Amino acid sequence: MAIYLDKNKPVSKRVEDLLSKMTLAEKCGQLNQRMYGWEAFSRDGETFQITEKFKEEVTRFEGIGALYGLFRADPWSKMNKDTGVSRKNAGKVANKIQRYVIENTRLGIPVLLAEEVPHGHQALDSESYPVNLARAASFHPELQKQVAHAIAEEISEKGVHLALASALDILRDPRWGRAEECYGEDPYLASELTAAITDGFQSDGKIAVILKHFAAQGEPVGGHNSGPVSIGIRELREIFLDPIRAGIRSGALGVMAAYNEIDGVPCHANKELLTSILREEMGFSGIVMADGCALDRLLKLNPDPKKAAKMALEAGVDLSLWDEVFPFLEESVEKNILDEKIVDDAVRRVLQVKFQLGLFEQPFVAEEIQAPKSDWKQLNLQAAREGICLLKNDFETLPLVGERKKLAVIGPSINALYNQLGDYTAPQNESECVTVLEGIKNLVPKNWEVLSEKGTEIREKLVDGIQKAEEIARESDAIVMVLGGSSARNFNMEFLSNGAVSSKGPNMDAGENVDVSDITLPQPQLDLFYAMKRTGKPVIVVLIQGRPIAIPEISIEADAILTAWYPGGMGGKAIAEVLFGHYNPSGKLPVSIPRSSGQIPIYYNQKAVEYKEDYFDLTGKPLYPFGYGLSYSTFEYLDLQMKQDVITISELNNEQYVEVSVNVKNTSNLAGVEVVQLYIHDIEASITRRKKELKAFKKIRIAGNETAKVTFKLTKSTFEIWSINNKYEVEPGGIEIFVGGSSDTKLTGRVSIIGG
Amino acid sequence: MAIYLDKNKPVSKRVEDLLSKMTLAEKCGQLNQRMYGWEAFSRDGETFQITEKFKEEVTRFEGIGALYGLFRADPWSKMNKDTGVSRKNAGKVANKIQRYVIENTRLGIPVLLAEEVPHGHQALDSESYPVNLARAASFHPELQKQVAHAIAEEISEKGVHLALASALDILRDPRWGRAEECYGEDPYLASELTAAITDGFQSDGKIAVILKHFAAQGEPVGGHNSGPVSIGIRELREIFLDPIRAGIRSGALGVMAAYNEIDGVPCHANKELLTSILREEMGFSGIVMADGCALDRLLKLNPDPKKAAKMALEAGVDLSLWDEVFPFLEESVEKNILDEKIVDDAVRRVLQVKFQLGLFEQPFVAEEIQAPKSDWKQLNLQAAREGICLLKNDFETLPLVGERKKLAVIGPSINALYNQLGDYTAPQNESECVTVLEGIKNLVPKNWEVLSEKGTEIREKLVDGIQKAEEIARESDAIVMVLGGSSARNFNMEFLSNGAVSSKGPNMDAGENVDVSDITLPQPQLDLFYAMKRTGKPVIVVLIQGRPIAIPEISIEADAILTAWYPGGMGGKAIAEVLFGHYNPSGKLPVSIPRSSGQIPIYYNQKAVEYKEDYFDLTGKPLYPFGYGLSYSTFEYLDLQMKQDVITISELNNEQYVEVSVNVKNTSNLAGVEVVQLYIHDIEASITRRKKELKAFKKIRIAGNETAKVTFKLTKSTFEIWSINNKYEVEPGGIEIFVGGSSDTKLTGRVSIIGG
Repeated sequence: MAIYLDKNKPVSKRVEDLLSKMTLAEKCGQLNQRMYGWEAFSRDGETFQITEKFKEEVTRFEGIGALYGLFRADPWSKMNKDTGVSRKNAGKVANKIQRYVIENTRLGIPVLLAEEVPHGHQALDSESYPVNLARAASFHPELQKQVAHAIAEEISEKGVHLALASALDILRDPRWGRAEECYGEDPYLASELTAAITDGFQSDGKIAVILKHFAAQGEPVGGHNSGPVSIGIRELREIFLDPIRAGIRSGALGVMAAYNEIDGVPCHANKELLTSILREEMGFSGIVMADGCALDRLLKLNPDPKKAAKMALEAGVDLSLWDEVFPFLEESVEKNILDEKIVDDAVRRVLQVKFQLGLFEQPFVAEEIQAPKSDWKQLNLQAAREGICLLKNDFETLPLVGERKKLAVIGPSINALYNQLGDYTAPQNESECVTVLEGIKNLVPKNWEVLSEKGTEIREKLVDGIQKAEEIARESDAIVMVLGGSSARNFNMEFLSNGAVSSKGPNMDAGENVDVSDITLPQPQLDLFYAMKRTGKPVIVVLIQGRPIAIPEISIEADAILTAWYPGGMGGKAIAEVLFGHYNPSGKLPVSIPRSSGQIPIYYNQKAVEYKEDYFDLTGKPLYPFGYGLSYSTFEYLDLQMKQDVITISELNNEQYVEVSVNVKNTSNLAGVEVVQLYIHDIEASITRRKKELKAFKKIRIAGNETAKVTFKLTKSTFEIWSINNKYEVEPGGIEIFVGGSSDTKLTGRVSIIGG
Repeated sequence: MAIYLDKNKPVSKRVEDLLSKMTLAEKCGQLNQRMYGWEAFSRDGETFQITEKFKEEVTRFEGIGALYGLFRADPWSKMNKDTGVSRKNAGKVANKIQRYVIENTRLGIPVLLAEEVPHGHQALDSESYPVNLARAASFHPELQKQVAHAIAEEISEKGVHLALASALDILRDPRWGRAEECYGEDPYLASELTAAITDGFQSDGKIAVILKHFAAQGEPVGGHNSGPVSIGIRELREIFLDPIRAGIRSGALGVMAAYNEIDGVPCHANKELLTSILREEMGFSGIVMADGCALDRLLKLNPDPKKAAKMALEAGVDLSLWDEVFPFLEESVEKNILDEKIVDDAVRRVLQVKFQLGLFEQPFVAEEIQAPKSDWKQLNLQAAREGICLLKNDFETLPLVGERKKLAVIGPSINALYNQLGDYTAPQNESECVTVLEGIKNLVPKNWEVLSEKGTEIREKLVDGIQKAEEIARESDAIVMVLGGSSARNFNMEFLSNGAVSSKGPNMDAGENVDVSDITLPQPQLDLFYAMKRTGKPVIVVLIQGRPIAIPEISIEADAILTAWYPGGMGGKAIAEVLFGHYNPSGKLPVSIPRSSGQIPIYYNQKAVEYKEDYFDLTGKPLYPFGYGLSYSTFEYLDLQMKQDVITISELNNEQYVEVSVNVKNTSNLAGVEVVQLYIHDIEASITRRKKELKAFKKIRIAGNETAKVTFKLTKSTFEIWSINNKYEVEPGGIEIFVGGSSDTKLTGRVSIIGG
């Protein structure tokens, strides 16, 4: 038996053995992931055939590294229930692909199957979880780890190996259409969640996560998707690098490079980023995957694809995605443009993942897929619940309890399942999902009556819409409005007047490549809101949104406001539970909510340098700050205690820490959950620091009228900064500590770090 | 005679000799510019006395390096015609100050008198020229050199030595209140103008210009004045460093550091910026002045003023401004925190300027001040004329000619002199200035009638204002509206309700520390505009503005639009000349005009990387692009000729060049002036390049129906970029050339640069 086939041999030995047997063409094939997975098969009823196109691809590359999107179903892949791969058939199709590759290549190297999992598997019959922005609002890494694990169970059963998971983008510009894919605006929160999901995806050893995108995609100039990022190295390090570092600590096996350039250098050609920082400094040893066709964009730097291929490979990209550049790797070596040794390094990394995931031992999966686990649905519901942020609740408008009432449920997203799900969504089994209206109808107290009317679309008026809504509202005792945005693509694939096919839904105003200049709630919805206000009935606003939407008027005039973000397939149930008091909300804003586009950027962790913070025509403060969120319980923060008020750098180096405790009192009769947040402000440093930086949080349940003591340990990593000396170090000086239930808390302590 | 007193000795020898005689205290005194000049004297009628405060200052520092603002008159200095120094008295007061310093210090080192000259001397009886944004619209460096020379004549007669001139800030965020101080958004245009004014200020050898601010102040995060700048080193070099480089080439003797930090490092503590780049790389040998109290802000990095002083001095700051930090220099040396050699270097630079300006030979000026030169006023008028940009002129609405007409002149800035002048303005001799209404009345054809009404303030409604304006407008044949913004501070120094004194004028919405979130024309003015439109009469909009104001509705509905920016004291005359066709406009936009704040940033020289340019809800194109501006003549661009379509790098290194020519035809009967602009797009480079970059322009007069051939020489400096190798170099590859009358021209050529 060849060494590489011997599972008892160390992976590194197996990699070297296999590599030594490979031709240059075979090596380059392993670095290519050129075709769309959905074009690899044809379907006739329940029968699937490998397409000629796929066979040609395997022949052309003498084996391929990976195949993307075998199961992807959406308007773009044009796969739906009639054309795509159902859950039931997934194992069968995966095995067919795998078998073809193994049997029709000289060395029989299995192929990695890669799939999108931004909020569940973007495939038929898959659970659709809340988007990252909602999941970040939970401030609950353990829960998100469970969600990731559930997704991993679901996809590994289908024969998938690479899980492409949004995690690294930090939401710095709410105009950006992919805001929903971010774990909010804070690097620490995003890092904790990235570490958690990496663990969740990979803990069974069957899946390699591909964390995306690396790096800084969340701060494009002007909010334009994949646009240039002009920040410097410090801003990059302080804001964008922590999540990947956390993912690497959790053992992440893959990273996807980001479309954007950073200060003039595209990430896909950025050796400092992909090699010096990622591999050498952070110790990443997995694969770097290109984003779709991103390597083709390098042709703008160098029109020769052989040179563009060299540029990307030398920078640190291992595996391509759909581009026309990496197919030139072989020629690039042959023409002595590229050194084959660099090809070898990349191939090593691809092979290593294949060995680590056990593909050589077990390339196939069971063709009989198990029934979906019931706890996936339950987990999905819990994720939706914990993502809901209660922003306003005047006079205890919520929860809706008491006497028989007529409830008017009004707005564009009352019964629009896809509006709840976000971008990268497959066609759903709608009977298994719950819209807001369905959720309300299911949970409404007996004898209550529910009336409903859309009133408007997201951005377009409906004929007589407001009038119909007003009629219902006038009859009612309270109004629940379901407003906001939508990333729902057009599953009907309508043809546009110019003959082109649009995948944008008729009311879509968010999602990839759907950036807006104006982040305020669209006028038709505002008009509807004012019409509802005019009825004099209490108005409760439920927001369904994938980006922060500016609602300055609503924040003043609504009686209660909650945002569920895009809460996923179980979102309607979770929202109804909160409305009727079956679930006590605990979500906290993972992003600051601006008052207008003119206030962008408004992230809480601004630099503390002296400058004019307020605009002449508007406050410099956000509508709602990062970390903010109400509960039906009320909490009071007391007795901030610093166990140490001085610590030396060498003590920190020796794993000693600063202990901070606070008492959190539930001042209501109702048991509730609070996210206790700790921020620091470094008041003496070699470089300018931020007003506040989140450094720890704990989510705790406190019974009514009880007090919980919460303790935080602040270690070396809490205090480390990328100093003027261009290294991470702890500097002597004072540090202010803030603890509370949002980023604008006032309870403070202080610790002095001294040299020696 | 001591060597330092011998004017026949070389400056360097004189510096060393004097330095060798100085005590540490005397040296540190030369680096301090602590007190406000307007507190150095007291006035009783026409008699001026040195204040005790000034005497104490001279004693405390054993001589002082410089004194700022002896003549500054504005609400902030509280100097006005009753309290400040008139032109007539200026020489007398300067001499008194100078004499006191010389006679009351051991070595008798004269003091440098520093004054603000952003658009003329900010002092009584001084000519108030158009602001930089207007002057940039002229695309006429020679004219601006003349303006600078006129200002230099004016101030040097008063005994001033240091001219603090806004020049280096690049307008990247129109929310920023100091937009008016920028030479627009383009580094090349700003560089040409900076070189020109440096020459103009310094050519008589009596004035040292202090170019401000260095660096990158025009791109603060969120548009907040003096806020952090987060850009990287490439963006810094490509956008912000060219103007100072041009200033140094023209021999600039001074630079002021900027308030902002760049990527975590305050400019005042930025050794890479102030020493490595400015001095070592660019060869600057003049003085670096701190901005006002900016060194105090370093206490946020290090609360010990001795260490903050060391930080700034070591970074490269030579001369302080009002701060409490540089007074600790002496103690910093005494406590061995700071090396005296670094103090010596800074003192050398201050003394060198004093020797270069001849202060030791001639510290005094003639006390009889000459009458203002008549050509200053003429120059001011010409500067205003050339800054006017005609943006729209449907159906030849302009110029206003022909039959007897009734003209309604409407709007908040029709007769508001200070609205025309911008920030940093002294009380004016109003009879010597011309408002728009005055200008119109002076130039209106015989028998025409002029009716006028304000209608609204800049941001506040006037009781019955719109109604009164409507009444007049209905009677009229055409309406000239004078709309926009204002940086007019409150010269009446009214007390606010809380007892504080505000220097903000009642309608001010721009200027230093007056940043706005919303750049659209304020609603009261829009309401007034729509009221005027409803009359059905032709509406001509004249904009008075210090920042780009978004006017999407007006751009569609007005019949003609011109912007004069803040056109200075002669602005009303210049505007009237354009309205009535006495002057044919030729100004070009030095900045792109956005459609809304949500479109920021919209500068024309965006990166050419692939990204989604249009927003979902708005085009990605500006309302009016950089370089755009109409004339009453019309021009056609023909026959772009490339004399070379290939050039080698070594040819470029040997001062060979690419010659590009174009024919510009005046297709009208009217002689006119056109700014012919040449842009490049580098299509092959080691780093990403911009869509277009202005690299040359020529302003030419073309007679009616004539054609002019315009030729450009593109040299090495045209093609040099800060490459991936972190150096300026010309790289091989193709370059697209665009020539036309604005940045969105389509006439193209191409040249290939080849290696060797």
